[in-house]
Amino acid sequence: MSKPRNAFYAQSGGVTAVINATACGVIETARANRRRIGKVYAGRNGIIGALTEDLIDTSYETKGAIAALRSTPAGAFGSCRYKLKSLEENQDEYQRLIAVFKAHDIGYFLYNGGGDSADTCLKVSQLSQSTGYPIQAIHIPKTVDNDLPITDNCPGFGSVAKYIAVSTREASFDVASMAKTSTKVFIIEVMGRHAGWIAAAGGMASDSATEIPIVILFPEVAFDRSRFISTVNRKVKKFGYCTVVVSEGARDAQGHFLADQGLRDAFGHTQLGGVAPIVAAMIRDDLGLKYHWAVADYLQRSARHIASRTDVEQAYATGKAAVAFALKGKNAVMPTIVRTSNSPYRWKIGEADLNRVANREKTMPRGFISRDGMGITARCRQYLAPLMAGEDYPPYRNGLPRYIRLKNIAVKKKLARQFTV
Amino acid sequence: MSKPRNAFYAQSGGVTAVINATACGVIETARANRRRIGKVYAGRNGIIGALTEDLIDTSYETKGAIAALRSTPAGAFGSCRYKLKSLEENQDEYQRLIAVFKAHDIGYFLYNGGGDSADTCLKVSQLSQSTGYPIQAIHIPKTVDNDLPITDNCPGFGSVAKYIAVSTREASFDVASMAKTSTKVFIIEVMGRHAGWIAAAGGMASDSATEIPIVILFPEVAFDRSRFISTVNRKVKKFGYCTVVVSEGARDAQGHFLADQGLRDAFGHTQLGGVAPIVAAMIRDDLGLKYHWAVADYLQRSARHIASRTDVEQAYATGKAAVAFALKGKNAVMPTIVRTSNSPYRWKIGEADLNRVANREKTMPRGFISRDGMGITARCRQYLAPLMAGEDYPPYRNGLPRYIRLKNIAVKKKLARQFTV
Repeated sequence: MSKPRNAFYAQSGGVTAVINATACGVIETARANRRRIGKVYAGRNGIIGALTEDLIDTSYETKGAIAALRSTPAGAFGSCRYKLKSLEENQDEYQRLIAVFKAHDIGYFLYNGGGDSADTCLKVSQLSQSTGYPIQAIHIPKTVDNDLPITDNCPGFGSVAKYIAVSTREASFDVASMAKTSTKVFIIEVMGRHAGWIAAAGGMASDSATEIPIVILFPEVAFDRSRFISTVNRKVKKFGYCTVVVSEGARDAQGHFLADQGLRDAFGHTQLGGVAPIVAAMIRDDLGLKYHWAVADYLQRSARHIASRTDVEQAYATGKAAVAFALKGKNAVMPTIVRTSNSPYRWKIGEADLNRVANREKTMPRGFISRDGMGITARCRQYLAPLMAGEDYPPYRNGLPRYIRLKNIAVKKKLARQFTV
Repeated sequence: MSKPRNAFYAQSGGVTAVINATACGVIETARANRRRIGKVYAGRNGIIGALTEDLIDTSYETKGAIAALRSTPAGAFGSCRYKLKSLEENQDEYQRLIAVFKAHDIGYFLYNGGGDSADTCLKVSQLSQSTGYPIQAIHIPKTVDNDLPITDNCPGFGSVAKYIAVSTREASFDVASMAKTSTKVFIIEVMGRHAGWIAAAGGMASDSATEIPIVILFPEVAFDRSRFISTVNRKVKKFGYCTVVVSEGARDAQGHFLADQGLRDAFGHTQLGGVAPIVAAMIRDDLGLKYHWAVADYLQRSARHIASRTDVEQAYATGKAAVAFALKGKNAVMPTIVRTSNSPYRWKIGEADLNRVANREKTMPRGFISRDGMGITARCRQYLAPLMAGEDYPPYRNGLPRYIRLKNIAVKKKLARQFTV
């Protein structure tokens, strides 16, 4: 039997609470198949690590450290926002990738990211064909935005959805108890520049057992100030308070982001304000109601302490499946999550061709948004509920979660040429 | 034996993740002493409920519902921001209180709040002496700000501290993994207008096992822009990134709040922006670094899902102690938390005279703040650590915490006169 070839694994784009659970699935599965896969080299700061030959040798990490990745948020090897251009525009970078892969006998390219990285992964597989260097490129889905096609949902989303639903419920209880003399409208800004999946999760804070008046502003629905204001006003009159969940991508009929209102400080400098204070000012100006607002920002996507168990399991399973695909000789594919039953919720791993995944964005179906454009439907609830189900608490020490920091020891460089990105 | 007199319980001011645990302690202890305490009437929306004779009869709530208060955030009976004026200025309101107490045979006034409510509670006890109507007034500490004197710490603080420490650690892991090509400075705005206790908790995100570069802006330390910027710059150069924890009460040497920078939107309207975007703009203007910012706002004080077990236990214990004090005939006192040992952490319930509590604010001791004014000392860590220790997860259903909503059935009014506040 020939010497097993090594695998390259990299994390790409914005990190999540569970992308390291995927890394855990990749590395543990590769280790369980030592006779067929050599070492797992991780790219330091994602694909940049491949280009600069800055590879991390994960074999130096203990079994316990790799296992701890399952409950550690963010990207243990570093991630990056770096999109490779087309093969025609950027021959140099692709040739460099092949040179690095060749130097380190890398036969498997496992790329963990969203739509952009699926595209890069596809290009690497094409490169393999055009250059004759044998490498199998497998994409592993990851995005809090939940906007990848074909897969029922994306690892990373379920946990951010749970965080937003839990936080919206808790803050709404707070506002409800203060509304008599104080805050009547609470606004929470959530991520999702193009797709309203995370905003929709805010709607899950309210259910038949715990009714909460919630107004959601989706990127998919053109913002209409007078309809929004009258809806908030009606809910405040009925319930005494109202919670607004606004997507950072909320925009008007002309497609302008609400967040882009030309805020200026006292010196006339532009102020990047977020959309929550903008919506808060509308409440104040049009209704004169007392408000509070929150911007969860990174807190929402790194909140491993309240991760969804479904999400952790699926993140691990996609990492495991990627290695299984590699061992089966597959190329230019992505493991997907296939929902086989809603009640009870059941899922399995499927497979998608990368050319059907790359550069396609899945937004909220109209049937998931209520007729008034500011709420979620029963179908949406049925879709979201199992994705945020179950708790998977990390271990704690002295009141704080124990998150692992790896040694991240570099592989000795073999190429004479330096490469700067 | 004469018929036992009833107790009045009210929640005052900003709510917390554990104020209902105190309510649970009050009601369960009163129920266990039925022969000596009649019913527990709760004020609907705090003291306003007493003034308007809008009392809630908690005896209609099941044992299970009262037990569930222990794991439900915010104020189950409603709270309010309403400070009674001095006895001289506001005879009418105090006479009304006595009329309501008399009508409902209330012999115990249990008031659950911060500094202002301690003052109100003291006035009620004085009123009892001056009017001859026998009522025992007991104050129960509650404030996320941790600024009450005498007591070692305040119920409500430990949980917000834990939330901020956990969130700061998680977001810092996120930034660390993105810093190579993206965000280098993350700013989180936390509560605490006059005292930096919550901001200090952000410093706990970093410890010997998990070093994180953190800069803290306290209300107690005059903000110096150039020293702040050079500190951030140094940390970014050394670690590749930096996290800034800024108190909403951060202010300059002249005492002006940083948040108050005269923000204007495109129409020239004042924008209440929060301090995080202000600090972010400084990072951008002075260092040109990419940043992200979050404003936790109500999320931090309602985050029962990540409450500190120490905090939940102490919140319950102070409620229980208040009833015990009442049964012992005490008046104008507050149960306190007394730290009897640091290692292992041990505490017991003590007792403070209300006239030593009211209208005094406890800010961070200088010995808790590092010499550069932007970090915490070992003494501060020793103080904070046990307060955020232990987890006390609420029950979940379908991925969301089950928080109780009480029936809150009103007591039949007995007074002819209406009273408006």
